[in-house]
Amino acid sequence: MRLSQYFLPTLKENPSEAQIVSHRLMLRSGLVRQMSAGIYAWLPAGYRVLRNIERIVREEQDAAGAQEVLMPTIQSADLWRESERYDAYGPEMLRFKDRHDREMLYGPTNEEMITVIFRDGVKSYKELPKNLYHIQWKFRDEVRPRFGVMRGREFLMKDAYSFDLDKAGAIRAYNRMFVAYLRTFARMGLKAIPMRADTGPIGGDLSHEFIVLADTGESAVFCHKDLVDKDILGRTVDYGGDLQPLVDEWTSLYAATDDMHDAAAFESTVPAERRVAARGIEVGHIFYFGTKYSSKMNATVAGPNGEPVTVEMGSYGIGVSRLLGAIIEASHDAAGIIWPEAIAPFRVGLLNLKPDDGTVTKACVDIYAALQAKGTTVLYDDRDLRPGAKFADMDLVGVPWQLIVGPKGLAAGKIELKNRKTGERVELAPEAAIARLTG
Amino acid sequence: MRLSQYFLPTLKENPSEAQIVSHRLMLRSGLVRQMSAGIYAWLPAGYRVLRNIERIVREEQDAAGAQEVLMPTIQSADLWRESERYDAYGPEMLRFKDRHDREMLYGPTNEEMITVIFRDGVKSYKELPKNLYHIQWKFRDEVRPRFGVMRGREFLMKDAYSFDLDKAGAIRAYNRMFVAYLRTFARMGLKAIPMRADTGPIGGDLSHEFIVLADTGESAVFCHKDLVDKDILGRTVDYGGDLQPLVDEWTSLYAATDDMHDAAAFESTVPAERRVAARGIEVGHIFYFGTKYSSKMNATVAGPNGEPVTVEMGSYGIGVSRLLGAIIEASHDAAGIIWPEAIAPFRVGLLNLKPDDGTVTKACVDIYAALQAKGTTVLYDDRDLRPGAKFADMDLVGVPWQLIVGPKGLAAGKIELKNRKTGERVELAPEAAIARLTG
Repeated sequence: MRLSQYFLPTLKENPSEAQIVSHRLMLRSGLVRQMSAGIYAWLPAGYRVLRNIERIVREEQDAAGAQEVLMPTIQSADLWRESERYDAYGPEMLRFKDRHDREMLYGPTNEEMITVIFRDGVKSYKELPKNLYHIQWKFRDEVRPRFGVMRGREFLMKDAYSFDLDKAGAIRAYNRMFVAYLRTFARMGLKAIPMRADTGPIGGDLSHEFIVLADTGESAVFCHKDLVDKDILGRTVDYGGDLQPLVDEWTSLYAATDDMHDAAAFESTVPAERRVAARGIEVGHIFYFGTKYSSKMNATVAGPNGEPVTVEMGSYGIGVSRLLGAIIEASHDAAGIIWPEAIAPFRVGLLNLKPDDGTVTKACVDIYAALQAKGTTVLYDDRDLRPGAKFADMDLVGVPWQLIVGPKGLAAGKIELKNRKTGERVELAPEAAIARLTG
Repeated sequence: MRLSQYFLPTLKENPSEAQIVSHRLMLRSGLVRQMSAGIYAWLPAGYRVLRNIERIVREEQDAAGAQEVLMPTIQSADLWRESERYDAYGPEMLRFKDRHDREMLYGPTNEEMITVIFRDGVKSYKELPKNLYHIQWKFRDEVRPRFGVMRGREFLMKDAYSFDLDKAGAIRAYNRMFVAYLRTFARMGLKAIPMRADTGPIGGDLSHEFIVLADTGESAVFCHKDLVDKDILGRTVDYGGDLQPLVDEWTSLYAATDDMHDAAAFESTVPAERRVAARGIEVGHIFYFGTKYSSKMNATVAGPNGEPVTVEMGSYGIGVSRLLGAIIEASHDAAGIIWPEAIAPFRVGLLNLKPDDGTVTKACVDIYAALQAKGTTVLYDDRDLRPGAKFADMDLVGVPWQLIVGPKGLAAGKIELKNRKTGERVELAPEAAIARLTG
């Protein structure tokens, strides 16, 4: 994409309404704009990142055997009366009446709706297990929306729902999602640590939060340093096999959020030099809640002997839009965002330092075409601006690799390749730089 | 995907609430389920089709130079007061108050919001032209929602908005979308004919509807047969060049919907044997409306001499979820849906006629793996059911190619390849069938 044509309205000044760094940087780098309190429009670069995150979430859900559906945003109040949550849910639920005076709501979550879909579509234990997920916008009418997309009102969530014949099956489903979550966050370049959690209003008796460590995190967290060092992507995962040993490996070490923290246990089970006391941001939450919804809503299947069996359920959420904020909180510097490669809006930034110089521009156009031909996404800064402004914008937007093309270097047959994260720079011939980025 | 594990709740009986064939077939083949009047959940196979349609729409919008954003579903009433449409819009607009008693609405369209985003982000004529689009759920509180996804209340729409310095630029933007629409619908296997249209509540003075011909269409249409025979996909399109001749070629022939029809002109300009009088379904609508919104909402840029210039706008819609219904109306038979290959939920259906026969199952598993390894999507019917039920389900779901594997054929080294559309069948060795489908 040529920056001269791209809609990337960066801001020079810090917006006064933004209290945290991710919110400031998302506004400054032209990723989002607030439309109403806690309601954002995603501009082209921000939407590219959001879609990259969605893609990774989807690939890992599919790999773990979940099947994608899409439930609507608007639900009938009657659904929530069946589960007895309609009156219990507070003013965070956005409620309204349609033109025929029927009570409706904007879904804050989908346990009820998916239970109805399952109940109508699955009749026999032979069709189990099932795990259905969707990636859809939700609305929670927060009293004080803040921190940008980290605590918005309209937000994008991936929520999966598992259905099994018995508790053992449900735990296997839980474990598949547990491992899929480890992989999902790791692929985004995040250290997300599963921590035993309170089940809250969703209910149930087994639950983990996945917490990204970031100095600016919303809550204090405590864990064993080994958990930070573990790497799931180097491990072979067989979703058809027994994942319990893998899950045990991650859950046997101490990890707790503030409200579940037990200082005595922390000190007695973790050696002093391996104790991590940090701050964290929740990016995922998984629940096993048994028959809490299926029994109230009569979701049964015919069991092996024909008798009705109330299905065992779990639900599994990832805060897709929130992840942008969390990733920026965990990965930025004074100059701007540092995107992990897998989710960056563009992989390469190409800086033309002298657009009115035919030789420089010819070199840039050739590099731009060569990289795109190899499937690499490129943001080409062809604007008629001084180099300093281009360096600043490219650092702010956080493109992982920068190719800097100027008349002096080019006369010597060289261009500069800069790594946004490390700041490392190397001079290379254009062909060598292209090979390095596409090899 | 193995059908034994897939969530594809097909129905044997025609649902009584469905009045038209696409609605019946979408329910029967397990693509969607109604959650409330005019509000649908998309089940796995239906969502696969919807995403395929989205992908084609996105690729063609991007190719035509439009940039993707995502605006939220919920808007502030104040936005619509700026354009003076809040009071004018009828009860189709879903209105409500949030917990702080602020007037909000579920967006039925986005002219106002995109104008604000443009106004805040673009300052100079040098940044023009711009075309921003999104693919987002909309809500229109129809008094009588019906015909399934063809006239739902919550529906998925692609809407693009162009911004230009003058009318000539706006017409160029209009032409780019005109040609992109021809390509978009053609890639989906549809004959969609542009017809001069009334501009209605959007306003403006130039507008075309894109109409798919289908016997069961909602309105009568009249056009020259040459328009039906034209093929845009065989033509070279240069979005940077002058598209007016191409647009003229498509607009110089007679084409009109019922309300714009001029019988005398039809008969005087179209030879009798080239007159098409048919029924059609609207799947796209494009508008040039000049400064209707930009003047009311003060969307200006600094012109070449620094003076403020009110931008010229157009908007361009495609009914993404409606397209599923339209495609089925245009492409089905008594047995079920006939999906065009580009948007089918799976390209190949693999039917194991004897799952308890080790040889047959081994052959199926090998074919399944070989096709998937080549990137072909396969729905593998491995269920323990009689052949007749499998044939019926695969025809109902409308997978374009069927591979039928039974013990008798296999003993002779053959499997059967059936084309869903033509019904043509051919016996081939398994390797030859795989080569034919992936070559």
